[in-house]
Amino acid sequence: MQVLLTGDRPSGRLHLGHYVGSLQNRVALQHEYSSYILIADVQALTDNFEAPQLVVESVYGLTTDYLAVGLDPNLVSIYIQSQIPEVAELTMYFMNLVTMARLQRNPTVKAELAQKGLEHSLPVGFLCYPINQAADIAAFEAEIVPAGEDQLPMIEQTNEIVRHFNRIYGKGESILKECQALVGKSGRLVGIDGKGKASKSLKNAIFLLDERDVVKEKVFAMYTDPNHIAASDPGRVEGNVVFAYLDVFHDDKAEVEELKGLYRRGGLGDVQLKSLLFEDLEKILAPIRAKGKCVSRKFVREVLASGTGRAREVAQKTIAKVREVIGLNYFS
Amino acid sequence: MQVLLTGDRPSGRLHLGHYVGSLQNRVALQHEYSSYILIADVQALTDNFEAPQLVVESVYGLTTDYLAVGLDPNLVSIYIQSQIPEVAELTMYFMNLVTMARLQRNPTVKAELAQKGLEHSLPVGFLCYPINQAADIAAFEAEIVPAGEDQLPMIEQTNEIVRHFNRIYGKGESILKECQALVGKSGRLVGIDGKGKASKSLKNAIFLLDERDVVKEKVFAMYTDPNHIAASDPGRVEGNVVFAYLDVFHDDKAEVEELKGLYRRGGLGDVQLKSLLFEDLEKILAPIRAKGKCVSRKFVREVLASGTGRAREVAQKTIAKVREVIGLNYFS
Repeated sequence: MQVLLTGDRPSGRLHLGHYVGSLQNRVALQHEYSSYILIADVQALTDNFEAPQLVVESVYGLTTDYLAVGLDPNLVSIYIQSQIPEVAELTMYFMNLVTMARLQRNPTVKAELAQKGLEHSLPVGFLCYPINQAADIAAFEAEIVPAGEDQLPMIEQTNEIVRHFNRIYGKGESILKECQALVGKSGRLVGIDGKGKASKSLKNAIFLLDERDVVKEKVFAMYTDPNHIAASDPGRVEGNVVFAYLDVFHDDKAEVEELKGLYRRGGLGDVQLKSLLFEDLEKILAPIRAKGKCVSRKFVREVLASGTGRAREVAQKTIAKVREVIGLNYFS
Repeated sequence: MQVLLTGDRPSGRLHLGHYVGSLQNRVALQHEYSSYILIADVQALTDNFEAPQLVVESVYGLTTDYLAVGLDPNLVSIYIQSQIPEVAELTMYFMNLVTMARLQRNPTVKAELAQKGLEHSLPVGFLCYPINQAADIAAFEAEIVPAGEDQLPMIEQTNEIVRHFNRIYGKGESILKECQALVGKSGRLVGIDGKGKASKSLKNAIFLLDERDVVKEKVFAMYTDPNHIAASDPGRVEGNVVFAYLDVFHDDKAEVEELKGLYRRGGLGDVQLKSLLFEDLEKILAPIRAKGKCVSRKFVREVLASGTGRAREVAQKTIAKVREVIGLNYFS
């Protein structure tokens, strides 16, 4: 079985955007690959270093969400990055193989810096996180890394570092493995306010473990067409968040097209439409919520401890090999 | 006893410049402090990453030199940085507390970059080594760090990081300790060619374990006054390397002043002068050389293994504390 590595930064709970963008896919892939799910708390600290309690609490929250959504801890190893010091060690060696200029050219990082307004007081840790990420991937000899289009420059940089490492320390032999991106359908989900993608920080997301009445409230607060007052008024489908969600979540696509036609002509009220979407979402969310309620903090800890234990063994083997090829195996 | 931390990058053998600049001092201080001597192989790799075998071989060489010069492995812990992964881990957390702008402003780093011609293809690891160095110091809760004037910006940056760490994670409490520089008399030694300070890369140094005839050869090749041909010619004392060395190594300072007067007036030959210096140096080097010959590779390994073992225990305690205050003690 090929090794697949994926994961999240723990800086909040998971929502429908994550479900569509990656979680659904992970659940499907857990039978096909030997999967490691990285909870990147060290990386989350690079831009949350003053709020470590948010990061730590999110580690438990994320794991609960993973389990609720159907990731099976017998199939996947869910592990905490900070508990694998071998990754920090590998990061140090990788840092020699990347120039500052190259790091500053990374388009993903550039975009994030602008978004976070960090251009002028950029913490070194944040700028360097792609190197840390490369170490995550290389430490587990991951061959498959699910990624969105926007993450491709990261994968490219990882493979650059791995090739550079092999060239210097492997004398051409592949000591560390290059990985391959598994690019899924983009699966972006718009926020309920229609202002960009669903995100925790924009407070426009439906979380996987939101209670039924919260989900209902959010669905009924969705942005539609402000000029569509009475049910009989003609309404706009473009930019209408309810239709964007129905496109993703309503199984009968032909029915969605019919509804769009009716909405455009006039004769379909927002309440009726939102009720339909709410039922669709509840079909997905109710079982996740039910499962989530059965996940105890104790079980989460057990899952993390065993996943992290398994992960650490792999990372230890890699770092032993890395030390050996560099020549740092003084005592063995 | 206060904790003292000092060390070297393993990138060659030690010479008389090191003896005057730091080693003599370390031997004297080993009775006064609980001393850790760091062999910074990870840091040496930041600008020697393509020549790891030089770094590794120098680890053994350095240790031999330390023992030859009189460092007592029962008093000091000589340890290898790469074998203390806790330092890499701490470096990762420190990287969040330093901005890129601050790092690029460090005058010591700026000078090194210019010297090494690295301004344009600067490896990230090299730019970040002051953060790594701060982690070295903090991991051992070192209170005293012997340093030359040129190293003071590093110590300042270390304490800045430690204060920042304590402010965020200690809520005012001193989780990590600030250190104090112990600034020695500058103790710089000029190279035998008179062109700047003695250094391995300039090939103008007398190494501690140079054989007697090599030392003699180097002393007799020292730059004096090119216009001082016959012994009876008046000669220049300024810029004359032999006098620079006599100033440092000849115990009877009054005699040196007399010799300078005679040399200036004419009547003192270079051969006579160099013979005197050679005897002075041999008084220091002969016992070091003799001791060096008794140091087996096996003994060096034992010293490194036990020193590194002791050092790792200390670093493990620190990192446990660091993880706890950040909140990353998930499993304890």
